Amino acid sequence: MLRRTLGSIAVLAFRNYSAKSFCSNMAQIIDGKGIAQEIRSQLGQELKESVAAGYPVPHLTAVIVGEDPASEKYVANKMIACREVGISSETKRLPASTTQEELLQVIDDLNKDQRVTGVLVQLPVPEHINERTICNAVDVDKDVDGFNELNMGRLALDMDGIIPATPLGVKRLLEHLNIETHGRNAVVVGRSKNVSLPMAILLHADGKYATKALDATVTICHRYTPAKELARHCRQADIIVVAVGKPGLITKDMVKPGACVIDVGINRIKDETTGKFRLVGDVDFEVRQVAGHITPVPGGVGPMTVAMLMENTLKAAKKQFCNRNSS
Amino acid sequence: MLRRTLGSIAVLAFRNYSAKSFCSNMAQIIDGKGIAQEIRSQLGQELKESVAAGYPVPHLTAVIVGEDPASEKYVANKMIACREVGISSETKRLPASTTQEELLQVIDDLNKDQRVTGVLVQLPVPEHINERTICNAVDVDKDVDGFNELNMGRLALDMDGIIPATPLGVKRLLEHLNIETHGRNAVVVGRSKNVSLPMAILLHADGKYATKALDATVTICHRYTPAKELARHCRQADIIVVAVGKPGLITKDMVKPGACVIDVGINRIKDETTGKFRLVGDVDFEVRQVAGHITPVPGGVGPMTVAMLMENTLKAAKKQFCNRNSS
Repeated sequence: MLRRTLGSIAVLAFRNYSAKSFCSNMAQIIDGKGIAQEIRSQLGQELKESVAAGYPVPHLTAVIVGEDPASEKYVANKMIACREVGISSETKRLPASTTQEELLQVIDDLNKDQRVTGVLVQLPVPEHINERTICNAVDVDKDVDGFNELNMGRLALDMDGIIPATPLGVKRLLEHLNIETHGRNAVVVGRSKNVSLPMAILLHADGKYATKALDATVTICHRYTPAKELARHCRQADIIVVAVGKPGLITKDMVKPGACVIDVGINRIKDETTGKFRLVGDVDFEVRQVAGHITPVPGGVGPMTVAMLMENTLKAAKKQFCNRNSS
Repeated sequence: MLRRTLGSIAVLAFRNYSAKSFCSNMAQIIDGKGIAQEIRSQLGQELKESVAAGYPVPHLTAVIVGEDPASEKYVANKMIACREVGISSETKRLPASTTQEELLQVIDDLNKDQRVTGVLVQLPVPEHINERTICNAVDVDKDVDGFNELNMGRLALDMDGIIPATPLGVKRLLEHLNIETHGRNAVVVGRSKNVSLPMAILLHADGKYATKALDATVTICHRYTPAKELARHCRQADIIVVAVGKPGLITKDMVKPGACVIDVGINRIKDETTGKFRLVGDVDFEVRQVAGHITPVPGGVGPMTVAMLMENTLKAAKKQFCNRNSS
């Protein structure tokens, strides 16, 4: 009896220890959805107050060229967010056969329309249209995506401008969670112009200027970084932001215990057991066993992107209103 | 006798070995001055041919505000280079009391003057003038320094534009020496907007676009990178570019044997033994014992900057001529 009791206690104690150790080693899953929801509520409140103070209601026009189900879904999510925050919005759908000149004309009309305060062209555009020409055609003050070459230049120079929503959302997450970045090692995996490069700029630049950047030491890795070097750079990082589109790229052995891992990847993969498709990021599930903080996919960076788009739309509208009334 | 002879042979053998080992371990000193001279000669030849083909002679106007001996010297060097290449040039000197509005007016006049194809305002400008406002005021096509926000945005987006002369000169040096950069580790020490950030962009970005970037993995270190981390990042680097202004910052123990070290620093220090001032970079002299290639100061990056300014001036003039004649 005594033996059995002792045995039970031992088992219980072991179980308790395991549970505790298991819990304390597991990463905190960053609730991007919840944080984004909080920001959207705040923005809604701010908008109410600014409309009450005499500012006009912002209006966002999204343009979709062709029929891409993913684009449709992304834009639908943005329209829902607009309604929730109180931003007036509409989606212009153009056929896949639209020429670049026709699309430029549509953008020009939106640029000139004083009622429209935000313009975004959902990417990708069909192959016969030059994406860069389109991004640069959007009026710099209405460019709520922050993809215009002038907004990119301003970000690079730590100037006030519009910052692409995804890297801005990642910055906001790090700040919300009080992740220390000053003088820490950060690795950005990927070198896209809409996410990775602005992210690297926001991570490394001087916090005392307009963009309130994060003062980290930053390493940019990409497709030509040898796998061994990628692993080494990542292992030294306090913050890893991965935006590549390769499921399972970042594995447990590549992450320093306690590091903050931000997964920007969105990959649609087929579950071989159920036959259904599901969304995964670029970070292997097991990384949760070593990271200090980690964003889930979905529900991590995605909702923050939409929330930051709303913030950009409000900011852009306010600036246009002030510009018109000061000139 | 035999003993003495043997002894002499042993000493000779030892001496030979030492000399060989000493030589093979010493870095190749990169002859920036010679390479720059070669480029200037080529540019002079090209200019002669293009003038013969009907293109107008480019004209560079440099503006100096106030009386800074270093600025005077830099601009004088640029004027000498212009004469040598065959570029028409002039220096406008404005008093230190010039207001920002007055300077903007001077720039505006130069922007509108079709005869002037290149405009540069020598930095620093006096403190009562906003440097960024001035850089952005220079017409993007005449901005031979590449400091306008739009040129910065274009560089960040791998687009054709004007690239700041110093990082462009470093890139040209690496290419001239056939230093492998593709997939290699590069460290940029510093985060200035005129040198370090464009350098990091040129080092990491995709070589298949207009800027023909170098496809390296890049780490940006700066004042908030802890000394220990700076040393670690540097030791892993195949290429180190340092542009900080701290004599002796990069020491022998921080450099991987065989690495290419590019010293952009220019520091005027007093030699305690002679009492005279001399120029040194940010890299300690002993680094020559481990590096594979190293730029001297003076005579390394400095002359390349002037040569690239000449290249930018030619490119800008050609573009303006073509634009005028196609519209």
